Amino acid sequence: MDALRLIRVKEDIRADNKAAAEALRRRLAKSKTFLLNLMSAPGAGKTQTILATAERLRDSYEIGVIEADIESTVDAERVAARGISAVQLNTGGFCHLDASMVAKGLEGLDLERLDVVIIENVGNLVCPAEFDTGAVRNAMILSVPEGDDKPLKYPLMFTVCDALLVNKIDYLALSDFDLPAMRERVRRLNPKIEIFEISAKTGQGIEEWTAWLGREAATFIGRG
Amino acid sequence: MDALRLIRVKEDIRADNKAAAEALRRRLAKSKTFLLNLMSAPGAGKTQTILATAERLRDSYEIGVIEADIESTVDAERVAARGISAVQLNTGGFCHLDASMVAKGLEGLDLERLDVVIIENVGNLVCPAEFDTGAVRNAMILSVPEGDDKPLKYPLMFTVCDALLVNKIDYLALSDFDLPAMRERVRRLNPKIEIFEISAKTGQGIEEWTAWLGREAATFIGRG
Repeated sequence: MDALRLIRVKEDIRADNKAAAEALRRRLAKSKTFLLNLMSAPGAGKTQTILATAERLRDSYEIGVIEADIESTVDAERVAARGISAVQLNTGGFCHLDASMVAKGLEGLDLERLDVVIIENVGNLVCPAEFDTGAVRNAMILSVPEGDDKPLKYPLMFTVCDALLVNKIDYLALSDFDLPAMRERVRRLNPKIEIFEISAKTGQGIEEWTAWLGREAATFIGRG
Repeated sequence: MDALRLIRVKEDIRADNKAAAEALRRRLAKSKTFLLNLMSAPGAGKTQTILATAERLRDSYEIGVIEADIESTVDAERVAARGISAVQLNTGGFCHLDASMVAKGLEGLDLERLDVVIIENVGNLVCPAEFDTGAVRNAMILSVPEGDDKPLKYPLMFTVCDALLVNKIDYLALSDFDLPAMRERVRRLNPKIEIFEISAKTGQGIEEWTAWLGREAATFIGRG
């Protein structure tokens, strides 16, 4: 009984959310703002990757960031300290972002000025995969210390993403992470996903990733 | 409106869950079975820690394991391969375990024979912290590569746990993880929490952790 009740509410909410996400994408097309939703487990390196990405793209694009967290403002502070427009969204216990929360976050940014906005979703490989945030593209980070079996365990996340960043590639020597096996598992779930090996810390692979992201953004905002 | 509807259902379900958890603990006291709920982010090393823990305790206690995952049976296979009674619970999309799911899992184990059962919860630092599983003690793993800021971001998880295992301590040299700062953040949330530094891979710290766990189990099952 409980499960049935829960699922009905969830379906209602997800249908409402889908409509809100579509409306948000129309609004972003109008303001010519590309929105990227970045997801991962806790501690995979989302904030550091956003900083490295913004550093690389900021000469060509006006960048903004929405930092989502259950609590705390540490990430938005880190981003703002680098001179990047940042909004902190505190979900107050919610384990994911939905389109209405993202729309609220975007109110804190000047969309007419910004070309690219990156959302740092809540650190979670489960719930964020179920909710369309209104983003134009979805990307996820899998960090090497988490292990190569994650596609087997969190398949939906790997299925909904356009790009996979394999971060902390500098930990590879210390670990038994099997890159080819991981790639094979991911490709089976999502043959079209773009895979980038990066280290947000050392900068390795950031050029390839940001080249792809820049092309996707340019196409959406009509600069292609 | 949506949020209000969701929260009401959630409160109903959580009250029902609390009652189910209390009933489960009474049943465990009767069968003299100590139940540990082990939580962490994806890839923090739950399965490897369970294997190292069972290896150390199995001469003194009959051990069983409940492996929870959205999908896949890889973890239960790893545990069973070591000759430990294991049940795989597939949550089919649910991001956490509740007491009724754990009760279902326990049906697959012989409680009259078992002294200690360890639940590997879904890899997630958010939702599992909100649901009483019926376990006698809660423990969590924070792995070094995830970073020392996790207590700031997922405070509820650190608050509900009796023990914190800081795993992958062998990665410390490669990382800027600040152990004293992390301990200070955790103690502020939960002054009574037991903190163990371990490496499930090398075995470091497993003796101290299992000594504590063994004492907790002995007290509950009346062997103290």
